[in-house]
Amino acid sequence: MLPRSLLLIAATLLPLAASATDPARHLSREELIALAPSPDIRPTVDATKQYVSGGIGILIYDGVNAMDALGPYQTFSSAGLRPMLISATKDAQGNYKSVITSNSNMQMTAHRNIGNTTDLEVLVVPGGAFETALLATNTEVLNWIKAVDRNTIWTTSVCTGSWVLGAAGLLQGKKATSNWYHADELLAHFGAIPKSGQRYVFDGKIITGAGVTAGIDMALALVKKVFQNDLNGGRDYTQAVMLELQYDPRPPIKGGAPEKTDPAVFDAMQWMYDYFGLADYVRQIPIQ
Amino acid sequence: MLPRSLLLIAATLLPLAASATDPARHLSREELIALAPSPDIRPTVDATKQYVSGGIGILIYDGVNAMDALGPYQTFSSAGLRPMLISATKDAQGNYKSVITSNSNMQMTAHRNIGNTTDLEVLVVPGGAFETALLATNTEVLNWIKAVDRNTIWTTSVCTGSWVLGAAGLLQGKKATSNWYHADELLAHFGAIPKSGQRYVFDGKIITGAGVTAGIDMALALVKKVFQNDLNGGRDYTQAVMLELQYDPRPPIKGGAPEKTDPAVFDAMQWMYDYFGLADYVRQIPIQ
Repeated sequence: MLPRSLLLIAATLLPLAASATDPARHLSREELIALAPSPDIRPTVDATKQYVSGGIGILIYDGVNAMDALGPYQTFSSAGLRPMLISATKDAQGNYKSVITSNSNMQMTAHRNIGNTTDLEVLVVPGGAFETALLATNTEVLNWIKAVDRNTIWTTSVCTGSWVLGAAGLLQGKKATSNWYHADELLAHFGAIPKSGQRYVFDGKIITGAGVTAGIDMALALVKKVFQNDLNGGRDYTQAVMLELQYDPRPPIKGGAPEKTDPAVFDAMQWMYDYFGLADYVRQIPIQ
Repeated sequence: MLPRSLLLIAATLLPLAASATDPARHLSREELIALAPSPDIRPTVDATKQYVSGGIGILIYDGVNAMDALGPYQTFSSAGLRPMLISATKDAQGNYKSVITSNSNMQMTAHRNIGNTTDLEVLVVPGGAFETALLATNTEVLNWIKAVDRNTIWTTSVCTGSWVLGAAGLLQGKKATSNWYHADELLAHFGAIPKSGQRYVFDGKIITGAGVTAGIDMALALVKKVFQNDLNGGRDYTQAVMLELQYDPRPPIKGGAPEKTDPAVFDAMQWMYDYFGLADYVRQIPIQ
């Protein structure tokens, strides 16, 4: 038996030894690149690679902000998670459209639609402006979101997509963030605990992101969570994804948040949306 | 006539007075929101709003990185510049495809194609991986780029789109950046002066961006340049666009550039592309 003092010395030295072998604290190249997410939020496919169930679904609809949807799409895709775009807009015949037009006049093709998709591991609801407010009054879409939410691992929004989760009753009592536009007031309208200063907020299974480009940061935070088995708590895998995206942002000037924006510029932008009655409309949206 | 000492005092105080009336150093709300770019890089349209000529064209092709294209697309669109996606991929019948599939399996519809677009004010060439290297050997596309470049105000690339500009001979003797992957060596291969540590580089009419998300920063820098008439040298208008995008990035961890990435992670990512022979392929691409 070792004397007690030697045991004490060993206890002191062992962490140093682990630190000295730091290079071993990484998965091998092959292991890192092939690492599976846990929980596995990739879609289940059959032997012919046809979709069966689950996965990450990003709702798209006419008037969606394309970046709200594609920031998370590209981030999850670069992480090997095979996200899907899910159409929530019907054509004149009552069929879900496969081609959706963003509010920047960009057309994108949905992989699936809410009529043929009943379960997802992760739901992402991107925002926009007036069409998003309209979506938040669409009972069929809200009922689908409520039904899907019962089985998701995470239900999320980007930007004013929070209005849609809010109208579906999913933000009640939840800490949440949103696009900067009258954020605290409109989050409170939907029963949320406003945290609009935050870039993204995790509260249980509900994750909300701030406006537009915040969807990239929110998606990276989720990537870090599900690739925690990289031996560094998700840091290595997330850094791999960030390098793939070369996501080392350097905006040419300060800005992007109300407190970093000149008051005259903030006033002009809020006035523009107020002028068209957007906040007034959202203040009337009921929780269904 | 005022005594000379009073004139000196006035000269000292006048800048302070201008500073005190700072609120007047902004355009009105209406003027700021309606501000026209100078030079005007919006497309020329006829009385029925049909496209005639000019504008910002973003090249898309099967295998393009969707974010490389859509980062600038969304940024320019939020700035009111009405960018267009231009198809550069032909179908089996030799017609330009209108629906392009990104390397993340996202389908987007092009507004125009290189067969029906002969002049642009701004050309953006996004990157990707193997399909981008292939594009850089496509003589028809390179000839179109060279012809369009003769009349552009700015010719730009995002990420490995620099390989395509390089193969078209447009980077020779120009300071340029690119995606991090063997950046300095491959920029030098195309005759550029490598500046790969920079997020974006302006050299005369050539603007290059680093990888993927750098396209947002590059586009914002161009927005600042063309909206210089906002009374603050473009700062106000750019802040308005950044607020619209809520572009105040806060990645969950440090990363996104080689020097901010753990060496083991950087090694794994570079090895992955090297394993498939990407750099070896690009090293063989001639300047046409």
